[in-house]
Amino acid sequence: MRPTSDSPTGLNTPTLVVDLDVLDRNISAMAKHADSTGVRLRPHAKTHKCIEIARLQIAAGARGLTVATVSEAEVFAAEGFDDIFIAYPLWVDQDKARRLLTLLENVQLTIGVESPEGAHAVAAQLGPPAERVQVLVEVDSGHHRTGVLPDNAGALADMAGQAGLNVQGVFTFPGHSYSPGSPRDVAEQESAALSAAADSLRGVGIEPNVVSGGSTPSIKFSGGSPLNEIRPGVYVFGDAQQLELGTCGTDEIALTALATVVSRAHGNVVLDSGSKVLGADRADWASGYGLLLDHPGARITALSEHHATVKWDDSPGADTRPAIGDRVRVVPNHVCNTVNLADELVVVRGREIVDRWSVAARGANT
Amino acid sequence: MRPTSDSPTGLNTPTLVVDLDVLDRNISAMAKHADSTGVRLRPHAKTHKCIEIARLQIAAGARGLTVATVSEAEVFAAEGFDDIFIAYPLWVDQDKARRLLTLLENVQLTIGVESPEGAHAVAAQLGPPAERVQVLVEVDSGHHRTGVLPDNAGALADMAGQAGLNVQGVFTFPGHSYSPGSPRDVAEQESAALSAAADSLRGVGIEPNVVSGGSTPSIKFSGGSPLNEIRPGVYVFGDAQQLELGTCGTDEIALTALATVVSRAHGNVVLDSGSKVLGADRADWASGYGLLLDHPGARITALSEHHATVKWDDSPGADTRPAIGDRVRVVPNHVCNTVNLADELVVVRGREIVDRWSVAARGANT
Repeated sequence: MRPTSDSPTGLNTPTLVVDLDVLDRNISAMAKHADSTGVRLRPHAKTHKCIEIARLQIAAGARGLTVATVSEAEVFAAEGFDDIFIAYPLWVDQDKARRLLTLLENVQLTIGVESPEGAHAVAAQLGPPAERVQVLVEVDSGHHRTGVLPDNAGALADMAGQAGLNVQGVFTFPGHSYSPGSPRDVAEQESAALSAAADSLRGVGIEPNVVSGGSTPSIKFSGGSPLNEIRPGVYVFGDAQQLELGTCGTDEIALTALATVVSRAHGNVVLDSGSKVLGADRADWASGYGLLLDHPGARITALSEHHATVKWDDSPGADTRPAIGDRVRVVPNHVCNTVNLADELVVVRGREIVDRWSVAARGANT
Repeated sequence: MRPTSDSPTGLNTPTLVVDLDVLDRNISAMAKHADSTGVRLRPHAKTHKCIEIARLQIAAGARGLTVATVSEAEVFAAEGFDDIFIAYPLWVDQDKARRLLTLLENVQLTIGVESPEGAHAVAAQLGPPAERVQVLVEVDSGHHRTGVLPDNAGALADMAGQAGLNVQGVFTFPGHSYSPGSPRDVAEQESAALSAAADSLRGVGIEPNVVSGGSTPSIKFSGGSPLNEIRPGVYVFGDAQQLELGTCGTDEIALTALATVVSRAHGNVVLDSGSKVLGADRADWASGYGLLLDHPGARITALSEHHATVKWDDSPGADTRPAIGDRVRVVPNHVCNTVNLADELVVVRGREIVDRWSVAARGANT
């Protein structure tokens, strides 16, 4: 048996491992970017779902957190985070209203609306306390998932205001930045959409105090836009998607799945990190289901629940494949879904385990 | 707001819901199939990860359980299940050896081997107690993931026996049955591969007491094969992959994700059940990322972490799309990964909630 690769000893596999030095650098770099461009940083906690990482982000200058669900907000509120944006077009029924009212006791809460039905439900279910919730109108900046067209933002904001909501601005998610070569163009589209939406709000007499956007790939191209708040998530860890988009380098990969080679059948290398560890995400432009941090030419080309099949790029006659029993570090395609599969993250500096962080908001989907 | 669809009231969304009547029928039908074809049923518990469902399977006649990992075995062993096959080419290091030895105190344990390195590690790490572990040689029946070629099974079995392992037979996973039109041909390949592998064992003087195989799609075509044990998993719930393969009908779908419509932007219907609820699985032959149980023409065509974008198949001029706030039942593509994202399953008969089952082995990957 060969010695294991450059990974901490004493860990079972598969395990998610966070390199604390890289994490610190990533958090610091984004905080500096926000500072230097004069925008508020409200990082999306859906990526890490960890109290400890959210604290590091706030300590570095983030002004609050973004989450995707009421239950994520509840997890972070319970640990004292008091400024939270649920960046989602919530459908507020009786149960969600009860939970939002509880959150309001300790949290400055912001939520999204993108339809008259959704806005009316918020107003009807929350009643007068709705005034204490900041509302941002979701704008479609080209991703075409949810959100109103920019020029329609004012009409929805006006309607929401008349229903009793406290509209404070607009937000968008430029998710179409997740395509090779697109981040610069997408940042321009985002800028144009938010400018038009902000003007649309002013047209109905509402000052857009918050103009929020920013995906990890598009943020570095967003200088000069009307954005005054950015909500990146993935930047803390990086992942194979960001590597293949050119958004980060391998020295910015802070999370890997430590995996063991269990088979070398059929000329491949098969790892014990399957879709129940990495997630099954594969964009149509991705080169596979994940990469190996220490072997740039290797690609995960098939994924079962507990098997990752890796194609190796050996030159003819060479065999650089790891042996059965060796360990490798896998870079997952989409780290948000990877983290959501794990109960904890093992935190290392070099080969030393320095902490274990609970994925406190794992599975917080409601 | 329209009334919610045919789903239990009082549930938050997104939530995984199990229809107990359908589950009971599925469990009973597979038990009858095994009985009528004279094979042992050892269902794969990786699909449900629930103690309660494993108990229903045993009560219906299953002879033991299959799992994929040591930690899954530990969860079921702790609840009294005493005959468990870890159908995986385990790499047994010191930690896994310690855990296997603990399991052996109360469990008749079976594990897989598919390489000399793996077999030697089992023997070296377990020492003399290795004799009490049944070992099956994994055979490649055409899926080309792991496993030895059928004619090489005897050589590996012989080597493993000489190393001190108790080889009792062969197993395969015919995973290439997950392709439209292939299940019948794949069942024939599986049969031929297992016959050759069993002969190969006999050639080195080892009687193949266990000949184990069977995926959910291929099982109904496996009559007359040398199989004496089958390990289906997905049959308990069904999913969109099984529907599109023709392996089950909509009346056999026992698990759905109850989801709420949160947007109708851009002519689509957007649900709150994203990839953190359904899983991101999409085979290249799948029509989308999941189906709606009550709307056969609808397809989830895009999936974000908390958004499922559904294309509707309305006739020109018609609009049968559900309204914002309505609820729908989503059939996930690959139910094993869906269940592994949830902490519990809500169990219903009709519209009545009758139980909540913990996904006890959720995240048990090591």
